[in-house]
Amino acid sequence: MGFEQAWLDYARKISCEGTDGIEAVFVGIDDDRQDILIKNSVAELQKAFAGLFGRKLAVHMGTADGDGICLLFREGMPAEAYHVYENGGKITIEASDSQGILYGVFALLRQMQTGDSLRGLDLTKAPVMPMRMLDHWDNMDGSIERGYSGESFFFEKNEILVNERTVTYARLAASVGINAVVINNVNVKDAATRLITERYADKLKELSEVFAGYGIRLYLSLNYAAPMELGELQSADPLSEEVRDWWKRRMAFVFGQIPNLGGFLIKADSEGRPGPFTYGRTHADGANMLAEAVAPFGGTIIWRCFVYNCQQDWRDEKTDRARSGYDNFIGLDGKFLDNVILQIKNGPMDFQVREPVHPLFGGLTKTNQMLEVQIAQEYTGQQRHVCYLIPMFREILAFRTYAAKEHDTVEDIVCGRTFGQKNCGMAAVANTGNDENWTGHDMAAANWYGFGRLAFEPELSAEEIAREWIRLTFGKDKQVEETMLYILMNSWKAYENYNAPLGIGWMVNPDYHYGPSVDGYEYSRWGTYHRADHLGIGVDRSSAGTGYALLYREPNASVYHDRERCPDELLLFFHHMPYTWKLKSGKTVIQHIYDSHFEGVEMVDEMVERFEKLEGKLPEKSYQRMMERFAHQKEHAREWRDQINTYFYRKSGIPDEKGRNIY
Amino acid sequence: MGFEQAWLDYARKISCEGTDGIEAVFVGIDDDRQDILIKNSVAELQKAFAGLFGRKLAVHMGTADGDGICLLFREGMPAEAYHVYENGGKITIEASDSQGILYGVFALLRQMQTGDSLRGLDLTKAPVMPMRMLDHWDNMDGSIERGYSGESFFFEKNEILVNERTVTYARLAASVGINAVVINNVNVKDAATRLITERYADKLKELSEVFAGYGIRLYLSLNYAAPMELGELQSADPLSEEVRDWWKRRMAFVFGQIPNLGGFLIKADSEGRPGPFTYGRTHADGANMLAEAVAPFGGTIIWRCFVYNCQQDWRDEKTDRARSGYDNFIGLDGKFLDNVILQIKNGPMDFQVREPVHPLFGGLTKTNQMLEVQIAQEYTGQQRHVCYLIPMFREILAFRTYAAKEHDTVEDIVCGRTFGQKNCGMAAVANTGNDENWTGHDMAAANWYGFGRLAFEPELSAEEIAREWIRLTFGKDKQVEETMLYILMNSWKAYENYNAPLGIGWMVNPDYHYGPSVDGYEYSRWGTYHRADHLGIGVDRSSAGTGYALLYREPNASVYHDRERCPDELLLFFHHMPYTWKLKSGKTVIQHIYDSHFEGVEMVDEMVERFEKLEGKLPEKSYQRMMERFAHQKEHAREWRDQINTYFYRKSGIPDEKGRNIY
Repeated sequence: MGFEQAWLDYARKISCEGTDGIEAVFVGIDDDRQDILIKNSVAELQKAFAGLFGRKLAVHMGTADGDGICLLFREGMPAEAYHVYENGGKITIEASDSQGILYGVFALLRQMQTGDSLRGLDLTKAPVMPMRMLDHWDNMDGSIERGYSGESFFFEKNEILVNERTVTYARLAASVGINAVVINNVNVKDAATRLITERYADKLKELSEVFAGYGIRLYLSLNYAAPMELGELQSADPLSEEVRDWWKRRMAFVFGQIPNLGGFLIKADSEGRPGPFTYGRTHADGANMLAEAVAPFGGTIIWRCFVYNCQQDWRDEKTDRARSGYDNFIGLDGKFLDNVILQIKNGPMDFQVREPVHPLFGGLTKTNQMLEVQIAQEYTGQQRHVCYLIPMFREILAFRTYAAKEHDTVEDIVCGRTFGQKNCGMAAVANTGNDENWTGHDMAAANWYGFGRLAFEPELSAEEIAREWIRLTFGKDKQVEETMLYILMNSWKAYENYNAPLGIGWMVNPDYHYGPSVDGYEYSRWGTYHRADHLGIGVDRSSAGTGYALLYREPNASVYHDRERCPDELLLFFHHMPYTWKLKSGKTVIQHIYDSHFEGVEMVDEMVERFEKLEGKLPEKSYQRMMERFAHQKEHAREWRDQINTYFYRKSGIPDEKGRNIY
Repeated sequence: MGFEQAWLDYARKISCEGTDGIEAVFVGIDDDRQDILIKNSVAELQKAFAGLFGRKLAVHMGTADGDGICLLFREGMPAEAYHVYENGGKITIEASDSQGILYGVFALLRQMQTGDSLRGLDLTKAPVMPMRMLDHWDNMDGSIERGYSGESFFFEKNEILVNERTVTYARLAASVGINAVVINNVNVKDAATRLITERYADKLKELSEVFAGYGIRLYLSLNYAAPMELGELQSADPLSEEVRDWWKRRMAFVFGQIPNLGGFLIKADSEGRPGPFTYGRTHADGANMLAEAVAPFGGTIIWRCFVYNCQQDWRDEKTDRARSGYDNFIGLDGKFLDNVILQIKNGPMDFQVREPVHPLFGGLTKTNQMLEVQIAQEYTGQQRHVCYLIPMFREILAFRTYAAKEHDTVEDIVCGRTFGQKNCGMAAVANTGNDENWTGHDMAAANWYGFGRLAFEPELSAEEIAREWIRLTFGKDKQVEETMLYILMNSWKAYENYNAPLGIGWMVNPDYHYGPSVDGYEYSRWGTYHRADHLGIGVDRSSAGTGYALLYREPNASVYHDRERCPDELLLFFHHMPYTWKLKSGKTVIQHIYDSHFEGVEMVDEMVERFEKLEGKLPEKSYQRMMERFAHQKEHAREWRDQINTYFYRKSGIPDEKGRNIY
């Protein structure tokens, strides 16, 4: 077992009450509505039953009269929703569209693999977020930016790949409810220019059709300066008629070639990428120009808010990168067309292990918004450390913005509950690659699985999601489940413990973002500083400092602004504090640094000790692969602990109360 | 004028008394001794006179009877020595070998270009160091490790280049007395394996013949594990008969193909390179095996002493990289064959802006030694900052080792005066590349020029050498000369001022070694630490620490060991000192850090201010090229100043006495 099928591996035999009598699939759907999604739904059921029970399901057209699984359309249900229920041994999957049928099939299979019985099954689910997207940072040469799982399976040597792995990828993504995928890196201009030329149209069409068979819309990252890059225009000014016409023609061509295309993701005016600022225009001007061009084809423009000055002078304490997303976009609220979605990172910096929620959530009230998270563990252990991120995402989604009297959490906003928007949702920078197990660390697959599940059903707890993933992946062994659950549920906290303390972030080696370097970004141009000196540490983002804390709505602004009320875990993000400051925990800042770093290592040791007891209970190859990574994590967590503790001991001169080894 | 000819550019017209009457070269050397060196000597004279005076020198065989330049052999002179004198308008160049004639020709031309008259000229010079070598770190793909002047001119796409630039390179090298060149990177195994195969034999022979025409022996870096790399043996054990036989056969083949080959340079058991340690053998075993194999062909083995543990734990304060060269080699003194030379870096670490002299100099008394310096400015500004290194080399050469009652300086040792050795000398890691001006920064050519001149005539002062180079390169304009001289002579001190303080070194960005990063190497595996904490900084290398100071002979050991006597500029190399310690200068350590960093920037500002006044007096292209680099150096020196001052201010909490801006 090589884990090529991840959580859709049907090779493990299971027992589940109520499955024995199921011998056939009844497709009670008119011929003319039996699209590829219905065919793939039936095929998935057949594949699963063949693997799980070793029997071939028959397929009948028309409604069932005996035991079996019946697929039916029922009008009036929400788009993509399903109703799966058991009645006298017969299973019915109802939906108003074929995508709902497919999701119902996966729900049924999940129930069979994770539960003990189908008796009395009655599940009705509609996806809560309209857009559930994976953003791949794959380059056309086959490399992946911030990829920790091997090479790309979308690109190789500047060609697009469509093969068996593409299909497995689509099945895995669809099984957790992903309905949109960006295949190319938003940070690299070449692909984002060339993919809208004739050169790749046929292959993209083929890929989009594979995706469509699983309810996934293909999206592309787009180069804002494409008309110039392609040598056809001398400007990319969004208010120029020539430029606007160029885009209209180009989009007519692209959508003509790839009718299933969903739209485009754009990073403009950021980290060296071109954008409307070049022409003194706003991001609304830029996004709306593209939105107009794709509107006739039902296309969507997803515009990233990750815009900041990446040439900051470290000496400058007034400029604050954390403010920049807010400052650049808040004035444009309400100015974007309806087929534009702003994609906003969960925090104002960049996917650190701990950040406050981005103040644009709750700031913007008249703009479509998508929450962007990163399951590629760029700053959270790069899929060599285990770091289950769903608990973090749950916290972010639950954050109250106070943008409304009720239904004002981030979840409410990106689900459309707060402002009634339909173009909204959640995106994750993907963590997959060509590694046999897809995600490098076998346990990192829980983040992929969990992201999709969470976007579909945000009411699920991180623990529920983890249990599902464990059972699907490793079976229903109790010891395996409890051990893996313990590890997953403690992993983010452990990582935070031995990482940069109290929300300050950025104590990593520059460029590759792996391993500790306390001053790695301290004297750089990236706007990422801790400002530690002999007496204290932290960035003053109160009104006496950069004023960032006041970008939130009340009471959040007052809480963050006040060092007495600011939550411990974000204290150094918002305030420059003496090492001797007493936290709410009762510890001083310096003692918290020491304690948390020793604790983080102890947590890893405990995780590994428990994991080792699973030897023989997990597939050998998978166990060995994880053990290698755990051995590294144990050592590397010590490196984090010792470097950070030593740095602060040497700088503060304050000894550890407990007299432990600091160098 | 593109500076392709560097200091051998004869395009500038000159006037020099005593040259008018010279119309011919008289070759008073028997036909059968007129080798390619003599032909090249005559050609150089013709080329120079054509350029400098616009006239073609006739060539006559036999001794002169009229005005002209007469080339004569005279027995009894030392090898490679020359005697150049004027008598009644006639110039005679005498030597006992053709290499001496060539050096005499270049000496005459230098006199013509830098002096005002040939009247009374009477120069007798023998090169003081037997081996005057350039080590190129060129890779076969055309890149250069630590190369700051473009691509390689020896290699391109795995092929060896021999072309017009090769000849110009050989003329430039010979003109300053270089007589040995290693063309390939000692740090990379591929080339060091493949260059001894048939594949490259013809091209290497061709290259060696071009070199031989200018008195230069071709050397190659060799892979110690070549028999294994080539797949012919399973071991490289130096005591294995099979291995020894392999090398004998291989060397017979190589020298058969390339008779002019001088020998090999080897880096073994260092930074991941294989070596005799793998087999529990000593470096003497390894070097002698190769020496035996090349001895029948007059070959020489140059063995680097740059051996240390590059996997050190930063927490470990007992292991000391500075000790490792000494500890690995001192016990082998006297055990190396006579055609082995140990190549020892100037300091015990790695080409930092300030290090003590390597204790193997004076430690070894029965072993051939070569001093290795680096004119590639890896740690001294990478040929973007100006840093004239000859003053540093002069200090190193003048260092008294106390290995003998007299004639015990490093210069004495590597010239053979102390122990009577003949296989000794000086090598420099080269700073050249395919840039039009050879060295990136036009002023970096002074280091190439100066290194050769210094190895040939170590009695020359850094200032004399600088004046020569300036006059040869830019002519005899007084303002140009004084300005360039001021810049060159102050550049090392300025760089040291704004770099890591007081001999501690290593405050650079890891990997590429450019720009400040105070903690860049502090928590790494490289053995390069400053150990700064809130109270002080420095590495204790006294007997209470690593004991390194005691590796020197007395009185050096006592001086270095005693913090009261240790020279200021090396204090932090030898001792961990409080910031409040009073230096001999009267300043505290911390105030010295602040002052020197402000001074360093002021020195650069002054250099640039003076340089700007040369606009119009230098070739435009060269002036612009230098101005671009000076503009960068001005800004980058500030970055050094501010990062280092801020780091220590934040860490120590001690303010600058003068209240200047520290962040």
